[in-house]
Amino acid sequence: MASFLVNGWPAQSIDTADRGLAYGDGVFRTLLVREGRPLNWSRHHRLLVRDCGMVGIDPPDPGLVLDEIRRLAPMDATVKVIVTRGSSGRGYAYAEDLAPTRIVVAYPSLPVTPEPAQQGICARRCDLVLGEQPRLAGVKSLNRLENVLARAEWRDPAIREGFICDAAGRVIEGTMSNVFLVRAGTVATPGLTRCGVIGAQRERVRDLLAAQGIACAERDVPFAELAGADELFITNSVIGIWPVVRLGTWARPPGPLTRLVQALVAADDAAAP
Amino acid sequence: MASFLVNGWPAQSIDTADRGLAYGDGVFRTLLVREGRPLNWSRHHRLLVRDCGMVGIDPPDPGLVLDEIRRLAPMDATVKVIVTRGSSGRGYAYAEDLAPTRIVVAYPSLPVTPEPAQQGICARRCDLVLGEQPRLAGVKSLNRLENVLARAEWRDPAIREGFICDAAGRVIEGTMSNVFLVRAGTVATPGLTRCGVIGAQRERVRDLLAAQGIACAERDVPFAELAGADELFITNSVIGIWPVVRLGTWARPPGPLTRLVQALVAADDAAAP
Repeated sequence: MASFLVNGWPAQSIDTADRGLAYGDGVFRTLLVREGRPLNWSRHHRLLVRDCGMVGIDPPDPGLVLDEIRRLAPMDATVKVIVTRGSSGRGYAYAEDLAPTRIVVAYPSLPVTPEPAQQGICARRCDLVLGEQPRLAGVKSLNRLENVLARAEWRDPAIREGFICDAAGRVIEGTMSNVFLVRAGTVATPGLTRCGVIGAQRERVRDLLAAQGIACAERDVPFAELAGADELFITNSVIGIWPVVRLGTWARPPGPLTRLVQALVAADDAAAP
Repeated sequence: MASFLVNGWPAQSIDTADRGLAYGDGVFRTLLVREGRPLNWSRHHRLLVRDCGMVGIDPPDPGLVLDEIRRLAPMDATVKVIVTRGSSGRGYAYAEDLAPTRIVVAYPSLPVTPEPAQQGICARRCDLVLGEQPRLAGVKSLNRLENVLARAEWRDPAIREGFICDAAGRVIEGTMSNVFLVRAGTVATPGLTRCGVIGAQRERVRDLLAAQGIACAERDVPFAELAGADELFITNSVIGIWPVVRLGTWARPPGPLTRLVQALVAADDAAAP
């Protein structure tokens, strides 16, 4: 069973008038806690504050959120932090002094199955095409119906992720992950200025690569370019780094850059405060 | 105070794990109840079922929803019906047998101020540009952050609505309404196949005009075309039909077609079962 704190109080429910439910008027981030240590917390927190700013919600006090995460997750857990604009009456307009709702949820850690990270995963291209909304690009808002519809396109458990493109055929992200490709010794990840979600794991991978002197371009990536990739991998704060070993007719074993990224992330997690 | 039924039970709160909150994974419709009669119910119900189908949620039993509306709103009220995909664990994927959550909310009727409908309103053009997502076009989903951001662009109470365009500069809708224009004896409303919400009031207005032998084109409407409009009006199930008398530099008094639509809608409401 998941456990919840709503504005610091244990609760299994939220106000039906909350704008998070009414309009998806809020943002969230999901992270791993290991032995009481919230992994990659600085980036999760920075992105949560950025996302709040993008939609005009006062960000929660960072110390408060961290305290609540530690209360709910003293050992291992997957934790989700949701910030909504708060409860209001009907209508899109809101009072400027509306108090945001802060929800921290801790899910019991599932046993880690090492296979996807070790052996890699099969992925597919989704039919759904992401809409472009620069005002919300990169933001992990509560408006995630596109991701839900994209993920609902397949039930085959052998396929672990779907790649989603924009209307111009550029790959943007996975349904639950960010995408990286390695090609001719260069690393790239799709730019997320028109749509998509900037994951904290994506940002960490870019930082860790930069610290190794490895440039990672953030740019348009036509889906067709993936056919020429030497390596593909996906990143997500809960699953970590998964090599993609099959995508349609493309197939490659996990490559050395992917293995390096996995090692760098593992080392960074081990060093987390 | 608003009153709520969640799956038929009085409640002030919903499960924190509901996907309506987590992902905006649901749809809703808002309608007026007058002396216990849900106005324009057949179209609201048809669109609710359509919207559920578009996102793959089992629609609720119509008799059940109607019973619940009548329980909550025996006299006058504004009623919102929300259907979410239900509660689930973390992740965009969902079990096929997930039970949807049905929420019926009744807000006390506000005293009707006749001025906007009589004298018309001032509107503005919003800066926010709607993203295109044909898979959700027309659907009143719980992903309404674009409308929230567009409505947050102004606080001047003299401006009652904002017109929102797509990236090509076509007007699509108001933040809370659909838009109609009259020009050289013809009536048109923007097509909503790429983005926007199909309102039940919009559909009724089109039907009522058709019954009068007045064609209403559903087509692309470049925002620039509004400068040549003889009449502009907006439709919404709660506010009814409001003439627009000022939009930027465009200004016109309420026109005869707008008055006719107001009369037709009032007569249709009076005849509601």
